[in-house]
Amino acid sequence: MSVLEVSHITKTFGSKHVLSDVNLTFEEGKIYGLLGRNGAGKSTLLSIMTNRIFAGEGEVKIDSENVDDNDAKLGLMYLMSEVNLYADGWKLKQIIKDSESFYGSFNHELADRLITEFGLDINQKFGKLSTGYNSIFKLILALCLPVKFVLLDEPVLGLDANHRELFYSELIQSYSDNPRTFIISTHLIEEVANIISDVIVLDQGRVILNQPVEDVLAKTHSVVGPEKDVDQYTQGLNVIGHDNMGSIRANYVYGDLDDRILPDTVQLSNFDLQKLFIYLTNQYEGSAHHEDK
Amino acid sequence: MSVLEVSHITKTFGSKHVLSDVNLTFEEGKIYGLLGRNGAGKSTLLSIMTNRIFAGEGEVKIDSENVDDNDAKLGLMYLMSEVNLYADGWKLKQIIKDSESFYGSFNHELADRLITEFGLDINQKFGKLSTGYNSIFKLILALCLPVKFVLLDEPVLGLDANHRELFYSELIQSYSDNPRTFIISTHLIEEVANIISDVIVLDQGRVILNQPVEDVLAKTHSVVGPEKDVDQYTQGLNVIGHDNMGSIRANYVYGDLDDRILPDTVQLSNFDLQKLFIYLTNQYEGSAHHEDK
Repeated sequence: MSVLEVSHITKTFGSKHVLSDVNLTFEEGKIYGLLGRNGAGKSTLLSIMTNRIFAGEGEVKIDSENVDDNDAKLGLMYLMSEVNLYADGWKLKQIIKDSESFYGSFNHELADRLITEFGLDINQKFGKLSTGYNSIFKLILALCLPVKFVLLDEPVLGLDANHRELFYSELIQSYSDNPRTFIISTHLIEEVANIISDVIVLDQGRVILNQPVEDVLAKTHSVVGPEKDVDQYTQGLNVIGHDNMGSIRANYVYGDLDDRILPDTVQLSNFDLQKLFIYLTNQYEGSAHHEDK
Repeated sequence: MSVLEVSHITKTFGSKHVLSDVNLTFEEGKIYGLLGRNGAGKSTLLSIMTNRIFAGEGEVKIDSENVDDNDAKLGLMYLMSEVNLYADGWKLKQIIKDSESFYGSFNHELADRLITEFGLDINQKFGKLSTGYNSIFKLILALCLPVKFVLLDEPVLGLDANHRELFYSELIQSYSDNPRTFIISTHLIEEVANIISDVIVLDQGRVILNQPVEDVLAKTHSVVGPEKDVDQYTQGLNVIGHDNMGSIRANYVYGDLDDRILPDTVQLSNFDLQKLFIYLTNQYEGSAHHEDK
């Protein structure tokens, strides 16, 4: 079992702290969702992990070995990102061949099926691809290369609903045929909520959440009822947001309910990962709809 | 009440038919979802409607008057799209001023609130904006200009989950303060499903669906149970897709159920707009997961 470890990673661009002492452990065979607002540092972190840019401090290790300039370890990871590694004039076929020789093998059987399903023209030049097909081509590489760690930064950028659904189902199929580690960074949180096993939230360069999805969702509570009763019930709890609908109030709690006695007028349920993410990371904004407490 | 009419619009690029005899009527005060796969012709249609490109055949009218080179009518529409109309060196402030003088007025009060909520720096140059803030700036123009028809092509491109939710809630607020027509083209179908009143689906340049969302959803039926019973019950109905989960079968029907008697073993429910869209527009693909019938 391989383990990918990120220790004390710090990165500044000029005077801006992009990442501050990030510590994470990625275990083999899990599917991680790496969530964060625009500018939270997700892409920088993924680029540091794969040696595309260097950290100011800290280190990245696979099985206790530093990955810096370490081809054997770097060859265990593939990062699919918005940054294009290939020249515009290269044919897709050639890029596949080159990647195959760098990584040592390539799952041509799976690639052929994906190429047909997505309707990708493999004789095209890389620079001629639309945003959607650019993503699709890089996703095919990511799924077919023999890596233990597949890092996907905004994998469904430019894909229509049909292609997104096809990708999610192929990802699950590929994972079940060959369990390995996926790290998926995306803004479409609800679409991956059923796929990921663990959720990591980066906020302004710091890890503010890192837990199994199941445990996270079990701690979400929406408390709905008359305002007075709801506020009384949630007093002292970790209320991360609220909504008012006429005279009805919803307080959103993240954490324990302390075995309190629920008044008859108040209803409890869970809320979803995207809503949790929004409330946890909303501290900047003055929106009346999502005040933090 | 103003009405925007699209009659017999046809457009070819080279030998490719991008739009084929498109006929649509947009009534004032409705919110339309314009859905379609990548390449279905949505952006071309919106550009033709606003005179940015010209149709091969057909015409676009507002209140029975052709909009071609008609500034009075063109001034009733604003199209927010990926194509940038502004030079990179222009300051956002200046673009607002210019737009105000072209359209005659501008809702500065709303703009100021949106600028604060989204954290937009209005002294920046247009070309310096990230993808997300480029969208946000154009959305602010779209909501604050005094137009009767607001056309939004991929409005939430590059926005994180927080900014998407903020935009949807501001859109609803703006519509309720000042009811006018919105036409929203997006790949994030489930996110707009509760906002739009009517859904239009373009497929390979043709309108294949144009109805109130409520009516559309009422005609979706997922029929779940043992394969034999499900197939027997749905025989002769408009089955647009299916799923198999072990020995259990789900057939997805769009249309009437003909008052058939439902066997005890079979369960009926509705399915959502995104799923309907995927099945209706999936004819190209060989995916085992979404075969059309």
